Amino acid sequence: MDLHILDHRLRVTCINKNGLEMYTHPLIKLIFLRHRTRCKFFSLTETPENYTVVLDEDGFKELPPSQHLQVERSTWLPLNVVSSSNTSSSSQVVGVTKIAKSVIAPLAEQHVSVFMLSTYQTDFILVREKDLSVVVHTLAEEFNLYREVEGEFVPVRSQGLSDGLQKNGREVPHSTVHPVLIPKNQFCVMSLDPDTLPGVATTLIDALFYSNSPKEDGSPANDLECIKFFSFSLIDGYVSLVMDTEAQRQFPVDLLFTSSSGELWKMVRIGGQPLGFDECGIVAQISRPLADSDISAYYISTFSFDHALVPEEDIVKVTDMLHSQRKGMLKCRRKDLEENGQ
Amino acid sequence: MDLHILDHRLRVTCINKNGLEMYTHPLIKLIFLRHRTRCKFFSLTETPENYTVVLDEDGFKELPPSQHLQVERSTWLPLNVVSSSNTSSSSQVVGVTKIAKSVIAPLAEQHVSVFMLSTYQTDFILVREKDLSVVVHTLAEEFNLYREVEGEFVPVRSQGLSDGLQKNGREVPHSTVHPVLIPKNQFCVMSLDPDTLPGVATTLIDALFYSNSPKEDGSPANDLECIKFFSFSLIDGYVSLVMDTEAQRQFPVDLLFTSSSGELWKMVRIGGQPLGFDECGIVAQISRPLADSDISAYYISTFSFDHALVPEEDIVKVTDMLHSQRKGMLKCRRKDLEENGQ
Repeated sequence: MDLHILDHRLRVTCINKNGLEMYTHPLIKLIFLRHRTRCKFFSLTETPENYTVVLDEDGFKELPPSQHLQVERSTWLPLNVVSSSNTSSSSQVVGVTKIAKSVIAPLAEQHVSVFMLSTYQTDFILVREKDLSVVVHTLAEEFNLYREVEGEFVPVRSQGLSDGLQKNGREVPHSTVHPVLIPKNQFCVMSLDPDTLPGVATTLIDALFYSNSPKEDGSPANDLECIKFFSFSLIDGYVSLVMDTEAQRQFPVDLLFTSSSGELWKMVRIGGQPLGFDECGIVAQISRPLADSDISAYYISTFSFDHALVPEEDIVKVTDMLHSQRKGMLKCRRKDLEENGQ
Repeated sequence: MDLHILDHRLRVTCINKNGLEMYTHPLIKLIFLRHRTRCKFFSLTETPENYTVVLDEDGFKELPPSQHLQVERSTWLPLNVVSSSNTSSSSQVVGVTKIAKSVIAPLAEQHVSVFMLSTYQTDFILVREKDLSVVVHTLAEEFNLYREVEGEFVPVRSQGLSDGLQKNGREVPHSTVHPVLIPKNQFCVMSLDPDTLPGVATTLIDALFYSNSPKEDGSPANDLECIKFFSFSLIDGYVSLVMDTEAQRQFPVDLLFTSSSGELWKMVRIGGQPLGFDECGIVAQISRPLADSDISAYYISTFSFDHALVPEEDIVKVTDMLHSQRKGMLKCRRKDLEENGQ
């Protein structure tokens, strides 16, 4: 299998809820007016907490600094696994599950933080630019690695890191057990022809920028057991949308499309407190058991929390699995504490 | 003929060029998201100086105060002349020319300031709410006056003002001779079905909010002899657009429509220095000679300058007319000064 290191240098940013009005102008430009920007990698995800915006340097320079904008310090690079087209895969799973064992687990073992961005088309694994040599060394055994340079893919060789990786300079921490939340909404993962983007412009603008304003027609407030989650990305000309079924109903039926199976997805939100960017293994913790059970999953990291989307019919199984995994981890932790006499 | 005093209480505001980004969020809401606002009267006009926004109180409360927003103090009421449908008019003129002698001239004589807003559908004559009794008294002879109250048109009687109107409490000033500018661009006055507004959303957003950003495709800069002028209004569900032919080419050909004659218009911009809101007679000065010559004209006042649009084929005649009118006025002025021994 091939792994591509794409030619985008990304920033991970966050606009707080009160700041959105101020950023409407640059965001609409980045989403709809491709002739006015060189930005090629753009993703905007609304959660109840804030708006996570991941974008390349050409996009980033459109966002004026302000108290409403938080910017993660690092530059991130997107990795992308490309299945060779002539390999017939026995598994029908999609999303992060496919790369759980080959990419996510090994990077977690080397303590490389990853920021995941699944889209309708593919899964981007964002790693910090400074971690690239560790990433290359870690994944070189499993993959043919290529780095995109001006549109060409150039083979990358792992440059001899000292034997026995430095575990990226960090101590092995105890795995943290993060609380998970499973909201009631059902989600769809969709796409549309980028040339038809103007046709959904007002609906998309309404969903992205005005969904928190009260409507004058007095529609009921959101169910408290549902959470707001809406993700739009426009990456190298491909559009991907993740929204719940209520938001989907606002869109014209003929323009958005989804996979032929037309699945609905349930969300597992990971994190009770904001996760930060330094902890490793969060994606691995969720994706490993999903891979063991052949359950598809999209995975979308945001500035505060991580979000896995699993097929609706598998949510009970996933919930049970996470429950027993967590019980096991807590038992281990207690045992450790007892053995250390604490 | 009937004259309607419409049930909109309007504010005349101005956003400076640097402030537009900050107001993109509320303006897009007012233009495209009718289900989220009660605003029924909205007009936005870009000129080289600034953006003039005229809107009712429900719209006005969407605009957060800031250093970038200027607000004219008064509340303005829109008047609208309704030709009785069974009156066959011999004249084919449109726009402000039709009302030059019956409305504009009498109000100027009574020193009532007017703010004109011609649209594809009709011509709104905005007068200050505090001038209403003078307006009613002045126009009651010529018109049946009706005031719109909750959608019904209720007859208005002129309430006995003291004989010999007070000329609105102001001294008769010398008519000021304002310089005029005739840019090279040709303009179109158009409309579209409000239900198809989403179909032009991205083009309209681009024209209104991004036309000053450089394009990445490196299009040439604007001709220095052309001026930027773009006007959009959405009033009681009717859309009107005024733009030059260059802007028009960006729009899909099938959605915008214009009158069957498909005229092109040339602009006469009135004012070398910003005109302010207190001087009376500016519209009258331009519209009287046009009415004498049966030349149609749209008339759009903005925060800084006034703009008359006349048929392309009449622009030479209009230019000559304005030239000789101005020569005459300057001669009068000189004579006055001599007679006063100044």
